[in-house]
Amino acid sequence: MKRRVGVWLIGAYGNVATCVVAGAAAIVRRLTGTTGLVTETPLLGGLPLAGIDTLVFGGHDIRDGSIVRAAKEFGDRNGVLTTELRRAVAADLRRADKEVRPGVLVNAPESVLAMATPALRRRERLPDSIARVQADLRAFAKRNRLDDVIVVNLSSTESTPRISPALRSLDEFRRAVAKSRTTGIPSSVVYAFAAIDAGFPFIDFTPAVAAGTPLLRELSAACGVPCMGRDGKTGETLVKTVLAPLFVARNLHVMSWEGLNMLGNRDGAVLRDPGSLASKVRDKDEALRRILGDERTHSRVRIDYVPSLDDWKQAYDFIHFQGFLGARMQMHFLWQGCDSALAAPLVLDLARLADLAHRRGESGTLPQMAPFFKTPLDVAEQDFAKQMDLLVSYAAMVREETKRARRAGA
Amino acid sequence: MKRRVGVWLIGAYGNVATCVVAGAAAIVRRLTGTTGLVTETPLLGGLPLAGIDTLVFGGHDIRDGSIVRAAKEFGDRNGVLTTELRRAVAADLRRADKEVRPGVLVNAPESVLAMATPALRRRERLPDSIARVQADLRAFAKRNRLDDVIVVNLSSTESTPRISPALRSLDEFRRAVAKSRTTGIPSSVVYAFAAIDAGFPFIDFTPAVAAGTPLLRELSAACGVPCMGRDGKTGETLVKTVLAPLFVARNLHVMSWEGLNMLGNRDGAVLRDPGSLASKVRDKDEALRRILGDERTHSRVRIDYVPSLDDWKQAYDFIHFQGFLGARMQMHFLWQGCDSALAAPLVLDLARLADLAHRRGESGTLPQMAPFFKTPLDVAEQDFAKQMDLLVSYAAMVREETKRARRAGA
Amino acid sequence: MKRRVGVWLIGAYGNVATCVVAGAAAIVRRLTGTTGLVTETPLLGGLPLAGIDTLVFGGHDIRDGSIVRAAKEFGDRNGVLTTELRRAVAADLRRADKEVRPGVLVNAPESVLAMATPALRRRERLPDSIARVQADLRAFAKRNRLDDVIVVNLSSTESTPRISPALRSLDEFRRAVAKSRTTGIPSSVVYAFAAIDAGFPFIDFTPAVAAGTPLLRELSAACGVPCMGRDGKTGETLVKTVLAPLFVARNLHVMSWEGLNMLGNRDGAVLRDPGSLASKVRDKDEALRRILGDERTHSRVRIDYVPSLDDWKQAYDFIHFQGFLGARMQMHFLWQGCDSALAAPLVLDLARLADLAHRRGESGTLPQMAPFFKTPLDVAEQDFAKQMDLLVSYAAMVREETKRARRAGA
Amino acid sequence: MKRRVGVWLIGAYGNVATCVVAGAAAIVRRLTGTTGLVTETPLLGGLPLAGIDTLVFGGHDIRDGSIVRAAKEFGDRNGVLTTELRRAVAADLRRADKEVRPGVLVNAPESVLAMATPALRRRERLPDSIARVQADLRAFAKRNRLDDVIVVNLSSTESTPRISPALRSLDEFRRAVAKSRTTGIPSSVVYAFAAIDAGFPFIDFTPAVAAGTPLLRELSAACGVPCMGRDGKTGETLVKTVLAPLFVARNLHVMSWEGLNMLGNRDGAVLRDPGSLASKVRDKDEALRRILGDERTHSRVRIDYVPSLDDWKQAYDFIHFQGFLGARMQMHFLWQGCDSALAAPLVLDLARLADLAHRRGESGTLPQMAPFFKTPLDVAEQDFAKQMDLLVSYAAMVREETKRARRAGA
Repeated sequence: MKRRVGVWLIGAYGNVATCVVAGAAAIVRRLTGTTGLVTETPLLGGLPLAGIDTLVFGGHDIRDGSIVRAAKEFGDRNGVLTTELRRAVAADLRRADKEVRPGVLVNAPESVLAMATPALRRRERLPDSIARVQADLRAFAKRNRLDDVIVVNLSSTESTPRISPALRSLDEFRRAVAKSRTTGIPSSVVYAFAAIDAGFPFIDFTPAVAAGTPLLRELSAACGVPCMGRDGKTGETLVKTVLAPLFVARNLHVMSWEGLNMLGNRDGAVLRDPGSLASKVRDKDEALRRILGDERTHSRVRIDYVPSLDDWKQAYDFIHFQGFLGARMQMHFLWQGCDSALAAPLVLDLARLADLAHRRGESGTLPQMAPFFKTPLDVAEQDFAKQMDLLVSYAAMVREETKRARRAGA
Repeated sequence: MKRRVGVWLIGAYGNVATCVVAGAAAIVRRLTGTTGLVTETPLLGGLPLAGIDTLVFGGHDIRDGSIVRAAKEFGDRNGVLTTELRRAVAADLRRADKEVRPGVLVNAPESVLAMATPALRRRERLPDSIARVQADLRAFAKRNRLDDVIVVNLSSTESTPRISPALRSLDEFRRAVAKSRTTGIPSSVVYAFAAIDAGFPFIDFTPAVAAGTPLLRELSAACGVPCMGRDGKTGETLVKTVLAPLFVARNLHVMSWEGLNMLGNRDGAVLRDPGSLASKVRDKDEALRRILGDERTHSRVRIDYVPSLDDWKQAYDFIHFQGFLGARMQMHFLWQGCDSALAAPLVLDLARLADLAHRRGESGTLPQMAPFFKTPLDVAEQDFAKQMDLLVSYAAMVREETKRARRAGA
Repeated sequence: MKRRVGVWLIGAYGNVATCVVAGAAAIVRRLTGTTGLVTETPLLGGLPLAGIDTLVFGGHDIRDGSIVRAAKEFGDRNGVLTTELRRAVAADLRRADKEVRPGVLVNAPESVLAMATPALRRRERLPDSIARVQADLRAFAKRNRLDDVIVVNLSSTESTPRISPALRSLDEFRRAVAKSRTTGIPSSVVYAFAAIDAGFPFIDFTPAVAAGTPLLRELSAACGVPCMGRDGKTGETLVKTVLAPLFVARNLHVMSWEGLNMLGNRDGAVLRDPGSLASKVRDKDEALRRILGDERTHSRVRIDYVPSLDDWKQAYDFIHFQGFLGARMQMHFLWQGCDSALAAPLVLDLARLADLAHRRGESGTLPQMAPFFKTPLDVAEQDFAKQMDLLVSYAAMVREETKRARRAGA
Repeated sequence: MKRRVGVWLIGAYGNVATCVVAGAAAIVRRLTGTTGLVTETPLLGGLPLAGIDTLVFGGHDIRDGSIVRAAKEFGDRNGVLTTELRRAVAADLRRADKEVRPGVLVNAPESVLAMATPALRRRERLPDSIARVQADLRAFAKRNRLDDVIVVNLSSTESTPRISPALRSLDEFRRAVAKSRTTGIPSSVVYAFAAIDAGFPFIDFTPAVAAGTPLLRELSAACGVPCMGRDGKTGETLVKTVLAPLFVARNLHVMSWEGLNMLGNRDGAVLRDPGSLASKVRDKDEALRRILGDERTHSRVRIDYVPSLDDWKQAYDFIHFQGFLGARMQMHFLWQGCDSALAAPLVLDLARLADLAHRRGESGTLPQMAPFFKTPLDVAEQDFAKQMDLLVSYAAMVREETKRARRAGA
């Protein structure tokens, strides 16, 4: 029988989740193509991935709302998700809406609390939060007769605290849970722990602290569950990790690399929180600095909230470099992308690849997913082309195994 | 004894040659660093390459002039090669000037003829031209006790005729030479034939027809001499071959890619000749189309002569692409580079790599040089990162051999 | 009783006309604001202009089609004119559609003929074409009880022939008409002659030859009818005529000004015709050269057809200038505008201002309209700010007269 | 006898002052033209201005240094002021160097103190500072037999305190001086007071608080001395005040206007001081907001220190605007200018115009100088074209008077 895979979206009423659900439905109904999906390129051809038509969507959100309403708002403001398309997939959005449950709020910053549904504002004990998330996931799987559920974190950027004692080991964390002591535990860790502990793969598409903690590495290894992140690489950083290796290869000295990102969606609004901004900027700058490996380079990343842009990210990068004979040259680039339309297909890709990995018995972090993330866990390589080599080699290996298995089976 | 390598520059009074000679001298005198030299990156570390201080420069030019004067003009107009630096390397430039000989003019376009020294305007028989070039090369080698001479074509862009009968085979060409029948034979082929036939490697850094003809492949194989080209990849095309794979990897549909190049040097002036322009534009567009491999893409390359820019290439590229859910997005980039300062270090790189290849007994086209060219001969790959893989693998192999040889010798 | 003014659009199924009709309806129905309308700024406040709600639309087109259909196509491709808005003004579009009549085709270029409705392809005698246009205009006026009809040419760019003998004087033209001799007479002149001769003001929003011919100046003076043009100034040229005076005022020497325009609508397609392109480029470059008044400036305007852009004009301008101490500096600008949404409100402005001028007894060319045109007839001033001064002074004068008239009436 | 005018530069070793002195010398020696000088355009032709060859330079600086050394450093880093030019004007630079005196340091920010010559670090009583400045000015005038001395403030940006009690009136200030009470008195006010009180015109080319204080308006009126400022309008803000009126004239709604300025000179370094940055940004943003006059506009100005740029200002502006039918469009511009080469000619212009005004008996603020400043004192108009009208009308008036005077004299 056909495999059925659940995709559980943390931040289900957000722009990215909305585009994931609407986009998958539009593909299944043949209203749009598979442009933007890495798993549909010839590079990844022939892999035994779950079909888009077998995916079932649900998720958590801390706001009141609905995917149907989010799709209308998003469409009206951003020109993507037209009236016609929304009408055609309305039933699919409503079906997903029925699978959305209230999220958890642990140590959320003020900007996030302000958006939360009143019901969530009363305190919940930590063990209860975890149990609730796990119950939601299991019920979702059962109700829809799913073979697996992939949990993808698409919630707002968290400010990154230092790894607190509670996050340093599984034992420490279990002790904190037992005492319902939330100090130093962000919401993302609660979701991630709940998912992995219940046997469901967890993908962190945000710069949250979760996926990278010792606690979760230990847990995912112990449970035999894949867990990967962090922070989807969709726009300006993607271009940076493609361009920077050029300067290295040609021995051109990058004196300055200044990046200005402007955006106007909820993500941009949350980034006005200095803590959240700092974690985002760190991830964006880190990739560049690792590739260039030159301490003399002056680099800066700015993210400014410009409400009129809504979901359209407008980025400007200025690269000042020195060549032969000290000649000072420049490159500038402008990037104008619909952030959620860039992110959504990658979420589908990651869900399919995580499902494949889980089936194959992989656990812990997944290096083949490196090209999808700004800070790929346990992968030092930041050069996009070399990260793609990891993915392509993985695909070749799986294809080979699949063929062998078929021959053996025949 | 230390190996001594000659670098023979066709177009010796041009901007690129001037920067090659002045730059090498400045490096040797420790007035400038090795920024811009690929052969000085860690990627190519440990190769037994000729030292910059062992290179001796000479060349052909069809104009009256001198490298000393060219350096002054270039410095005054472009800000690179300062008065101080020129003074410090004046003796080196004068030494190279003594090694420059009058070039050959076979089927040159009007724009090139107009620049030629009067002495060259009387007709010379084809066999005499070839003999003269070979005599110049041999005398240069002898006078300077050189172990090898690498001939690098840096002359103005030629218009590319179809491969004429005379270029189709060695026999045909020899017959044409015997009869002094120049139909369909451009100057670049005369230089290339003369060099290879005399046992000297030939590198075509321009979009000339020479290096790619069946005649020269046959000849270089027969003579056991390396021969590579074509058209140095220094600026906008370089960026294109770095960026385009990103769109392929992410399954983003490039609807349009429009490139505008503006420059004001002699190269730009010659490109006002429609034939020359056509061959340049073809090389620039071809690389992009091969990477994208999408017939729906609308692409265009414009090269405009803007005198005020002189040697500074100003390029603007507009990329219109479609992502998930049909969202239409844009990327723009601006490139502002000193063309000759970008090209010159690559000429030094190619001379060193050609010398290494010749010593190792390689002959014919050299795939490891692919990342240096817009149209690398016999290499289909246009993705810059993958071309770099070819170079890096080659370096690893040579290093391995060198180590083995040392162990064997010890 | 309220004044009623007809606006007759040549090219009624085109993008601009469609936005004019849909936009006016949307304003009247309070679905959109008056953003983009110069006549709604405080600068022009207090003028006795016809209300948007009193305008009645009709026109000619040489294609089969309808404004309703054009609106749908335009909306689907360009994101402006949403499904919701189109639905809300559908009745208004249908009403305008009923007022569209087949246009005339005299010496049309191949690219225009290819679009024409078959019915128009049989030859019509010149006097009959004129009579037909006049009959259409008069019937429109009568049927809708209009106080005036303003004819606005929005058809595709014509190639500009030299002013042929037939266009040199009214007598010559009448003689040509009498003999139905069309040599050197473009369609735009036929429309313009018909309109003015019938007593209706004529506005040329395209770079057509019509409005600027001696014939029409003579005619409009004789008939006491306003007539103005040429070529609406909506985007890149507008910015040029705003920026160029800065360099003059600051005594900065513009060495080069290179402009690249990319667009993908029918206008762009027609501009692939070399004749049409030449007339458009001439108008765009002329304005710049007149302001700079410096023969040393190298300037170039390119217009490239890039289908994926549709109605969105993407322009890139590079300005290379020299300041104090010979310092070479640069400015670049990018303009990304929806061409028809920029043009449409100006068409409404021009219709209202032409109606006012006609009522006031003005005839011939109208200098107050200078800021609306790339080549304002009989106005040498190209500096946009100074052109605005002409309009603002005119407004002040009319306001003054209006007040005096009221006082006199009281 | 020929009039001789002194130009006294506060910040004499700075980049702008260096370009002023070297540039004037180069013009007099016919090594460079008058490009960049507004007073040399036809618009200001026929005014009885002091010749460039009659100007004598001196100034104050708080650093150890020399104009000769500053010119070398500036030339080496920025490509403007070449070795050849510096050699040719060396004697002129040395002559100016002899006229430089130690400046005053009152309430200077840490970043400025760090640069000061040790001698200045001991405390000086306020009345002594003023007396010293006046003595310097008078000695300069006497030594060089000058008819007038124009004092121009070119020192680093000060942080702008609120107008302290001491700055509110002449009486209050004199009382503070008497008691040597420096609270709320920045250095710029000390220079300005000293200059005007001694009868010398004062021009503030920086965003210092000085020129705009009630104290100085009172003083300059009382002394019959001109006094104008503030903050030279040389680059990005200049472009803003040229472009913004376009959007107003065309009724286009500017939703967002985001400006990023990058520079790497001492000015940029000082602007890392939050107070200094705040005053600079306020001046830059204020001009825009006044022109647009639209409270809905989101605007932001960023100034980032990018060391590799040195004196080259790189600015990027993003303008997001809405047109007819709600269409959302964009304009972007890049500005790449050598800041000091843009400022220096304006300093010469302002000195000549201030000298003219003083001779004509003008006192207090000078509205004709509005187009030179980001915040022109007592002029509300921010539209550059309209500010130029003020200057041009003034020139016409002076020309008229001059003619009349000549006729009367004849």
